[in-house]
Amino acid sequence: MTSETILLVFDILGTFAFGLSGALVAIRRQLDLFGILVLAAATGVAGGITRDLLIGATPPAALRDLWPLALAAGSGLVAVFTWAQLERVSRPVMLLDALGLGTFAVAGTQTALDAGLHAPGAVLLGMISAVGGGVLRDMMSAEVPRVLREDIYALAALAGAIVYVGALSLGLPEGAAAAGAVALAVVLRIASVRYGWTLPRAPGS
Amino acid sequence: MTSETILLVFDILGTFAFGLSGALVAIRRQLDLFGILVLAAATGVAGGITRDLLIGATPPAALRDLWPLALAAGSGLVAVFTWAQLERVSRPVMLLDALGLGTFAVAGTQTALDAGLHAPGAVLLGMISAVGGGVLRDMMSAEVPRVLREDIYALAALAGAIVYVGALSLGLPEGAAAAGAVALAVVLRIASVRYGWTLPRAPGS
Amino acid sequence: MTSETILLVFDILGTFAFGLSGALVAIRRQLDLFGILVLAAATGVAGGITRDLLIGATPPAALRDLWPLALAAGSGLVAVFTWAQLERVSRPVMLLDALGLGTFAVAGTQTALDAGLHAPGAVLLGMISAVGGGVLRDMMSAEVPRVLREDIYALAALAGAIVYVGALSLGLPEGAAAAGAVALAVVLRIASVRYGWTLPRAPGS
Repeated sequence: MTSETILLVFDILGTFAFGLSGALVAIRRQLDLFGILVLAAATGVAGGITRDLLIGATPPAALRDLWPLALAAGSGLVAVFTWAQLERVSRPVMLLDALGLGTFAVAGTQTALDAGLHAPGAVLLGMISAVGGGVLRDMMSAEVPRVLREDIYALAALAGAIVYVGALSLGLPEGAAAAGAVALAVVLRIASVRYGWTLPRAPGS
Repeated sequence: MTSETILLVFDILGTFAFGLSGALVAIRRQLDLFGILVLAAATGVAGGITRDLLIGATPPAALRDLWPLALAAGSGLVAVFTWAQLERVSRPVMLLDALGLGTFAVAGTQTALDAGLHAPGAVLLGMISAVGGGVLRDMMSAEVPRVLREDIYALAALAGAIVYVGALSLGLPEGAAAAGAVALAVVLRIASVRYGWTLPRAPGS
Repeated sequence: MTSETILLVFDILGTFAFGLSGALVAIRRQLDLFGILVLAAATGVAGGITRDLLIGATPPAALRDLWPLALAAGSGLVAVFTWAQLERVSRPVMLLDALGLGTFAVAGTQTALDAGLHAPGAVLLGMISAVGGGVLRDMMSAEVPRVLREDIYALAALAGAIVYVGALSLGLPEGAAAAGAVALAVVLRIASVRYGWTLPRAPGS
């Protein structure tokens, strides 16, 4: 796979997963159909728009191309019709969110590298674009963003981005590096929830 | 009217209407005078700044020119002195918000067309800049944005933007197209509130 | 001092002060270690990123250089280890926030002048970048931003920015102008809290 293909595939996966997660939150909060589509669309494209604004790539792909918003809103429609099935899975929002987090971490890092940022800047941009969708979703739902509440969240995105850059610098093929990095971030995130991994709290707090 | 005149007239109307709506929300929440001016200013210019950032027109007009912020803050002062009269109207925040929504939908669409975006991108940008002010106002007031809670909100902005682009492509004069599109969006929004129009909810939610 | 040195010194001070304030809020809200670092980092760099996006300086310094995020996150670590001491000071979040407010108001104004904005635009950008960090911190903590709740907040930043531009136009050396403007903003902010200064509220509210 070339880096463009990776970027596209992971962007599509992440947009769809985040869109579904936004739609499920909207359904739980009893929003109407349009509210569901709006929260799905906003959650799906927010990370990519943030990324594009920060590297100065305006207008962002989510406005220049039609597929990101269409896909994210489409994920809202899918959620409306498969809502009952999705809720049968244990913690569906967390799982979809973890998938979006991992894919966007790698896609954001690759975009930043393509834009000429140095490796640490690319890793940071990868993490920011990975958490951006969830932050917007949670803030629009008047919740404290889970990036703040949960121990291994931005950290999982950061780990994926670092491993991706590290694997590329070791000369691994981009496809393998990307797949491994996404898998690491997703597994790290899900395992931290399942096994209750936490970081130490501030002493005395 | 040329497209620049339309843009300016509707930007002025929208900034003032959104500014008033922000000020009324601030007064209801017992904010002090400066809080009222800040929420009025932020609500009045947020849509335009979002629009300018997304098409890469930096610094945004609201910082390059002085009138947008002065007008939006001025609307806060007007609200302070006419507050009692404004509140006598039934649902004044909703009415002002509807007017801002319609005018910004058309102004945002025209700005995007001037910047060279294709028609669907321009419609999207029109919708985003129309809802941007209200989203910021509601989030700064720690409320779930009404774009999420209310059925015909972003949809009304979307309808206005689509009709504007459609009318232009049919060769209608810009002034007539703009006036018609704004009227449609405003009437659609107000009627949906007055008559309780809703979209279907997700099955089972 | 040249304007670049001033900018750098005040950027460093403001980033650290805002970072500490974000970390203290996170500790009070019982966030875990990573949440503390994230809120410290976001609060520390948000004003600068907003400023850079608005003048079109992309990617923003906080992504291009490494020190802003490292410093802001480092302030989170400092807060974790000195938390008990910091809380012994009366109202530590307010004091640190006031220091960040004053330094960012001047640094933001200088950045805008360097970017060629006219004086009123530079003053506005100074105020926006000064309040940006606190707004993000409060919104991420699901609180109404204090820029809206408190009378002399954005006003203190505005006063500092105006005095800075005024002193420069009178030919004062940049270092003296900057130090005086920061001192004014910080003292104004702290005095307004200590002595309960308020602005008049809307009549009847």
